[in-house]
Amino acid sequence: MRNVRLDICYDGTRYQGWQRLANNPNSIQGKIETALSRILEEPIEISGSGRTDAGVHARGQVANFHCESEMSCEEILEKLQTYLPEDIGIDSCKEVSPRFHARLNAKEKTYEYRVWNSTRPCVFERRFVTVIPESLDVESMDRAAQEFLGTHDFSAFCANKNFKKSTQRCIKTFEVQRHGEEIRFRVTGNGFLHHMVRILVGTLIEVGRGERQPEEMTNLFGQKREMAGFLVPGKGLCLEEVRY
Amino acid sequence: MRNVRLDICYDGTRYQGWQRLANNPNSIQGKIETALSRILEEPIEISGSGRTDAGVHARGQVANFHCESEMSCEEILEKLQTYLPEDIGIDSCKEVSPRFHARLNAKEKTYEYRVWNSTRPCVFERRFVTVIPESLDVESMDRAAQEFLGTHDFSAFCANKNFKKSTQRCIKTFEVQRHGEEIRFRVTGNGFLHHMVRILVGTLIEVGRGERQPEEMTNLFGQKREMAGFLVPGKGLCLEEVRY
Repeated sequence: MRNVRLDICYDGTRYQGWQRLANNPNSIQGKIETALSRILEEPIEISGSGRTDAGVHARGQVANFHCESEMSCEEILEKLQTYLPEDIGIDSCKEVSPRFHARLNAKEKTYEYRVWNSTRPCVFERRFVTVIPESLDVESMDRAAQEFLGTHDFSAFCANKNFKKSTQRCIKTFEVQRHGEEIRFRVTGNGFLHHMVRILVGTLIEVGRGERQPEEMTNLFGQKREMAGFLVPGKGLCLEEVRY
Repeated sequence: MRNVRLDICYDGTRYQGWQRLANNPNSIQGKIETALSRILEEPIEISGSGRTDAGVHARGQVANFHCESEMSCEEILEKLQTYLPEDIGIDSCKEVSPRFHARLNAKEKTYEYRVWNSTRPCVFERRFVTVIPESLDVESMDRAAQEFLGTHDFSAFCANKNFKKSTQRCIKTFEVQRHGEEIRFRVTGNGFLHHMVRILVGTLIEVGRGERQPEEMTNLFGQKREMAGFLVPGKGLCLEEVRY
């Protein structure tokens, strides 16, 4: 069996997220699996580096799949680009070692969250930003973001209340910067819990509004979901890169 | 009568161009006039700095209109932003001198044309670029573009074969640059004939393919339409700025 790695980008606007599920006919994983199964004439299942929620985008999603087919990677790539809708792009397709697994081997991921800090988003960016018109203190938000660095119990930032496994994660860098009318939250960590990035950003926005203080962030480690901030919408989030 | 100026941006993908016409219910001008007439409770007609074709975008379109209403510009702006669809944005609304006319007073316009020079466009830019996968010689195209600078008879670059007025126009700057997989054509002039930018870009692309030589460009002045290159699609074009 060959093992093939795909580097994938998508505009998630039209999709109900990455994961193929019986009740989700409109997933990115499903679209790619259907196309691959048709191209290779064998049933294909792909493993993504992780799920992305409904409306979330990716510039650097990674997935792998096993196949019997001997079709060259160049041909698979060309056919995939033809069969897939224009909001899903395949940046590369290459054979990798049989032991490579896109999810299990992922060492680090970077996400970016984009807030449009004015009443209406730029028409060209509207699908990729969340509008929050109120005044936000970017410097406080960036200071608060630094409090999350390191390995901590992020239980308060996990949507799944009955999560049985460890909620410890390590955040390596977390930057909050203004670019004109836009505020970008860029975070890199060894892994993220369900909704973790969106709850972290929601909590920082509450800091930006003055409802929380930066130095209170460390009080949230090991707490219940209710203690952390609100969940920001999916459309502002993009999976930028996965490192192995 | 007050005279009000609007600075407008739009993603032209869904529209049949700027101009309201009896047989075009889906124009940007029409959308804005309908919204303004409802907000101000009087019939409003707007004059744009110029028409943009179906599928063409704008970051810096300018228009003006006259009204009796005494509603403040802040209120007009806020209501317009609420009533207009999310692919039309109003960046500013302000009262101007009674003599200002968006089309007649325009001194200079800048357009940008974006070519995605690879098989598939980036999923995030796909609405704003035209895909031309063949190898193109950017240096030759930029050299050819310089041949258009100055005041010349651009009859060969005008879609309207029976155009009665002068086809003389002055091009001030014209740059062709590669940015990764993208090639950007940026042109500034005192005005442009119907389809002129798109035929100029089509002619330069024929230079980029080696089908024309840069020094042949000056032979096209005062010629018939057939002598110039092909018309590139509207979706790669954006009206960037209008100066007064």
